[in-house]
Amino acid sequence: MKSTISIGILGFGNVGAGVVQLLNENRDLIERRTSKSICVKTIVVRDPKKYRHLDCGNAVLTTDAIAMIHDPAIDVIVEAIGGENPAFEYICEALKLGKYVVTANKEVISKHKKRFFDLAKAHDSDIYYEAAVGGGIPLIRTLKVGLAANRIESLHGILNGTTNYILTKLNDEGKEFGDVVADAQAKGFAEADPSMDVSGLDTAYKLSILASVAFKADIPVSEIPYEGIESIALRDMQLAAELGYTIKLLASGKQLSNGKLSFKVCPTMIPRHHPLAGVRNEFNAVFIVGNAVGESMLSGRGAGSSPTGSAIVSDIIDIAFDSHRTSLRNLEYAFDKVSLAHESELKSQFFVRLLASDAPGTLATIATILAHHQVSISKIMQKPCTNHVAEIVFITHSVAEDSMSSALIGLETDSVVQEIVTKLRVGLDEGDPV
Amino acid sequence: MKSTISIGILGFGNVGAGVVQLLNENRDLIERRTSKSICVKTIVVRDPKKYRHLDCGNAVLTTDAIAMIHDPAIDVIVEAIGGENPAFEYICEALKLGKYVVTANKEVISKHKKRFFDLAKAHDSDIYYEAAVGGGIPLIRTLKVGLAANRIESLHGILNGTTNYILTKLNDEGKEFGDVVADAQAKGFAEADPSMDVSGLDTAYKLSILASVAFKADIPVSEIPYEGIESIALRDMQLAAELGYTIKLLASGKQLSNGKLSFKVCPTMIPRHHPLAGVRNEFNAVFIVGNAVGESMLSGRGAGSSPTGSAIVSDIIDIAFDSHRTSLRNLEYAFDKVSLAHESELKSQFFVRLLASDAPGTLATIATILAHHQVSISKIMQKPCTNHVAEIVFITHSVAEDSMSSALIGLETDSVVQEIVTKLRVGLDEGDPV
Repeated sequence: MKSTISIGILGFGNVGAGVVQLLNENRDLIERRTSKSICVKTIVVRDPKKYRHLDCGNAVLTTDAIAMIHDPAIDVIVEAIGGENPAFEYICEALKLGKYVVTANKEVISKHKKRFFDLAKAHDSDIYYEAAVGGGIPLIRTLKVGLAANRIESLHGILNGTTNYILTKLNDEGKEFGDVVADAQAKGFAEADPSMDVSGLDTAYKLSILASVAFKADIPVSEIPYEGIESIALRDMQLAAELGYTIKLLASGKQLSNGKLSFKVCPTMIPRHHPLAGVRNEFNAVFIVGNAVGESMLSGRGAGSSPTGSAIVSDIIDIAFDSHRTSLRNLEYAFDKVSLAHESELKSQFFVRLLASDAPGTLATIATILAHHQVSISKIMQKPCTNHVAEIVFITHSVAEDSMSSALIGLETDSVVQEIVTKLRVGLDEGDPV
Repeated sequence: MKSTISIGILGFGNVGAGVVQLLNENRDLIERRTSKSICVKTIVVRDPKKYRHLDCGNAVLTTDAIAMIHDPAIDVIVEAIGGENPAFEYICEALKLGKYVVTANKEVISKHKKRFFDLAKAHDSDIYYEAAVGGGIPLIRTLKVGLAANRIESLHGILNGTTNYILTKLNDEGKEFGDVVADAQAKGFAEADPSMDVSGLDTAYKLSILASVAFKADIPVSEIPYEGIESIALRDMQLAAELGYTIKLLASGKQLSNGKLSFKVCPTMIPRHHPLAGVRNEFNAVFIVGNAVGESMLSGRGAGSSPTGSAIVSDIIDIAFDSHRTSLRNLEYAFDKVSLAHESELKSQFFVRLLASDAPGTLATIATILAHHQVSISKIMQKPCTNHVAEIVFITHSVAEDSMSSALIGLETDSVVQEIVTKLRVGLDEGDPV
């Protein structure tokens, strides 16, 4: 393959625009990772005039999909129009020409995957569809490569962001289904017509794709029983919570001990402590059991132009890797020259437990020392111990790490403090340069 | 590459034996996935007599590592001896001969990754190390390929199963550190000398590997500040819980907005509702923020011969994929002929909410109908509504799906039942053929 990979994109809606934006935003990083330049040559749209105000870089806008697909300068076709037709025809055409195809289209992959795989094999081409299931979560690749050594015993997934958002709000806000849907529509988390999502059909398409990857089974969506969440009432949510559960729209695929497979999509009560119960809002997740790896879970944003763009562009990068004999999938040839941050550039919240004299003014002394070192307190508790010793516990706001270090020295050297027993960081947010 | 891939394994402890066992157990599946036969030709051990009782298939046991590495019939060297030396020498030798190397050895990768990558590039060979971090979780591949389009903003990981097991037990069982360690040792979750784990050093090795994959930074472990969990007292756990947190040994890597990087390993209080707080026992997880994908998390078993075997064998399968022009990483050429299970072969727990007459004997009638259809009750609640209507809610034990269907018909047609409002499945365990 050449040192430049030329992309043609079918469609310039949310998905297509997300791909163009991400290729621009992370251009340097992608060129270093792949040793290739990846450029969008042509974007096929219905009405080029509509897109004049958008930044498409050097890409040409055209209406002629077939001409773009046949352009010998184009290596990779990104199908971002969605729906069955004409996506099906375009993908077939590209594969017949030996081109790489990348798609986010769950419907066309679910319905025609066998045809696509056969064409790719016959014409020495290839099709990538990481974005079709689970948005930015690299599910397909994990099942096909990362867990390739495993017989998959079962998978259970939350695969539709809209329904998971609705169920989360039902649970948290105590509103009825109709009100939550209206709210989700207003916020852009549900389509004007949300029926494909709430009916479970979207999830069933995705499950049929996972069935092929996880179980090597070509299951049409018509053979997957699916139920939606339309009938879930607030009362059900409340009862579920009372009993220790939360309700999720769950896709499940499983191999029974008699070798038969079972697939279904239905709202399911999940025990509150199961990892899937903690998957909230528009997030997706898949809980996988493999015969070697045991239980494993992947979660992340299931939809949106940016996570979908992440999956599509990662597929394009994987195509770029295909042209290297020694695999850039594994090696880091050229490490970057990097600078490590100093303690003074980092912030964190801290938890401190100390023992001090149980006498009037102790708390004031400690607070004064902390303030002197610019350490501000979020919570503080004093608990009496024996022998006039008090246990004092506090959590700081986010403070500079070196301020905290000097505050601790200040505390240690003050006569009211007997011992600093514990110092821990709190939370993930270690902030930015102070 | 040939139709058979021949493996030589250095070391036959837990890791090496796990690889041999998994290759045997999933042989058919692996051959179908790769269109290759993968066979272990030679296993290098110190004392072949010790292993006479073990099943090594057709593999030859030898003591001569260098001869095995130089054997022209061997394509892939699996390094499963651990530690820095002689693993370093063996891996260099194999890479110089243009062979594929697969290793689970975090120490040697952390210390010598740059040398290995340079050798692989110079000699057209390749090194895979998925098993070195996060056991069976395909972390390396996810960061290198699945999320390749992203600039990684931060990652926070629980990377050591032993310490996470200890912290979980501290939290759950209210024992002190020393008692929990003794218990973990008795159960095989901690080494006789657990200091490499509890000190945070093991986690720091793993973080330095993730630093190279996620941030393209070659950070020696000596530049990663690490603290262990030795000083965490039961009292700290209790206070953390009281304040809404749980304590985890967290590895973190982050790019600050000034471009500098920060890496550290330290016990950290995590808010109870953060996904990392729910990672329990010997499980590992990494919470990743990418500039396109947003927040994403992977979790699974971090250690043990079976998860480690899963990672090593998946690496071997990926090597087999390398020889195909059209990528078996993506395509499913040959779908299996599969059977789908019938409702009568599936079991589930069910939640049912119904409205019935609020009269004496109603509950007895319902219980009788359920029993008649072999549906046994786990929990049942009756709540009075208005107008002599009672709301009855029950959760069944795991029952055959068709029994449940006929029980529901029985309930619907009985005069005491006014309406079956909701029927939901409960939990993931849909059981086996009835």
